[in-house]
Amino acid sequence: MARYKIHVEYEGTNLVGWQRQKNGISVQEILENALFKLTGEKKIVQGAGRTDAGVHALNQVAHFDIIKKIKTDAIRDGLNFHIKNLYKKVKISVLKCKKTNKNFNARFDAKERTYLYKILDRRPPPAIQNKKVWHVKKKLDEKLMKKAAKVLEGKHDFTSFRSTECQAKSPVKTINSLKIIRKSSEIEIWIKAKSFLHNQVRIIAGTLMMVGKAKWKKKDVENALKAKKRGAAGQTAPAYGLFLFSVKY
Amino acid sequence: MARYKIHVEYEGTNLVGWQRQKNGISVQEILENALFKLTGEKKIVQGAGRTDAGVHALNQVAHFDIIKKIKTDAIRDGLNFHIKNLYKKVKISVLKCKKTNKNFNARFDAKERTYLYKILDRRPPPAIQNKKVWHVKKKLDEKLMKKAAKVLEGKHDFTSFRSTECQAKSPVKTINSLKIIRKSSEIEIWIKAKSFLHNQVRIIAGTLMMVGKAKWKKKDVENALKAKKRGAAGQTAPAYGLFLFSVKY
Repeated sequence: MARYKIHVEYEGTNLVGWQRQKNGISVQEILENALFKLTGEKKIVQGAGRTDAGVHALNQVAHFDIIKKIKTDAIRDGLNFHIKNLYKKVKISVLKCKKTNKNFNARFDAKERTYLYKILDRRPPPAIQNKKVWHVKKKLDEKLMKKAAKVLEGKHDFTSFRSTECQAKSPVKTINSLKIIRKSSEIEIWIKAKSFLHNQVRIIAGTLMMVGKAKWKKKDVENALKAKKRGAAGQTAPAYGLFLFSVKY
Repeated sequence: MARYKIHVEYEGTNLVGWQRQKNGISVQEILENALFKLTGEKKIVQGAGRTDAGVHALNQVAHFDIIKKIKTDAIRDGLNFHIKNLYKKVKISVLKCKKTNKNFNARFDAKERTYLYKILDRRPPPAIQNKKVWHVKKKLDEKLMKKAAKVLEGKHDFTSFRSTECQAKSPVKTINSLKIIRKSSEIEIWIKAKSFLHNQVRIIAGTLMMVGKAKWKKKDVENALKAKKRGAAGQTAPAYGLFLFSVKY
């Protein structure tokens, strides 16, 4: 038995997210089924971030144990082959596979996760970026967003910024950095933390959008944080604008 | 009667290209039908570049004449509304609409067209960029590609670099610039000219790919150009890696 670490890129559209669920097909289930086809072993594939339905990943990390001895490149290629064969319409690509030590845990050993949230702020709808960007019809002021983002950096009680269904024991999290970058008609929100609450990035994106529209001020974000209740922050931005960018160990 | 100039973004997947054709749905037909819904007028929408089936556009330019008086913003929004209503699965977005003078011709007045060809050069398949990048499994050497690209810049007889079905009278074209840019696992080929021959950009991409694989040398590209026959150059790279980036007037 050996443990392997994989990096995975996927388009979240039409998937129920990372985690196995009864109501549809998940990235985890697809990887586990492809792994079974490759090795004949029924194993759990444990991911670093449990991305929601519709959320994309550029570099999700996961681990699994298998008994069968296969070269890492052959695992990567074999998984990609079986994913393509089993699921015609799904877009999941295993980028890397490496042998790792038996104690490595993709979820619990992660030191920092980086998420990217993309907003297209122009009146016409997206054609090329369809389902990979949140379309906001009004031009946003990224300078206001940058100032307000500062409020959320650091260690805070993020009760207002988590789903009411969030199961984390503590609402206290530390955001290592929160950057706003303008790229022509797109605003990118880059956010780094050891871990996140459920929907935290999407609620932050929804709140900063209100600031960008100049409907909310920096002070309103401060008040939302202080209020410690979900209704005090902005809307949960749609899943399809969100990308799990990378995981650091 | 007034003439209008529009900028259009589209995903070429599932479309037969810009131009009206009997075998499927084209961008031109969709725009003309949306325009008819909006104005009740059956008009021709003339595009700057006749992109092939599967080719995308970030800024296609087109013009048309209508009698009905509508504000330009209402034309843009109205076209987008009717496109979405008439064609559920198609991704076409009218970015801008401006009134222009009656002599303006989107196709014949263009001074320069910029195309972008994207190659993903890594072994695992694309997930996020699926159908928007050419997947080449071997790492390409962009330095070799840059040197060979120099051969194709300037005025040449591009007979070897045009489809055998190309209807242009002369095979002589002037490439204003041909740049290769590496962006992590992607190679971007940026190419500018007043006008292009049929499949010229895609054959250039297919040829430079051979150079990137080190299967062809700069000298082979020179020889391909001199040979003046289609078989002498590389393959026609797939349509879905190609984007009409902009048109200058």
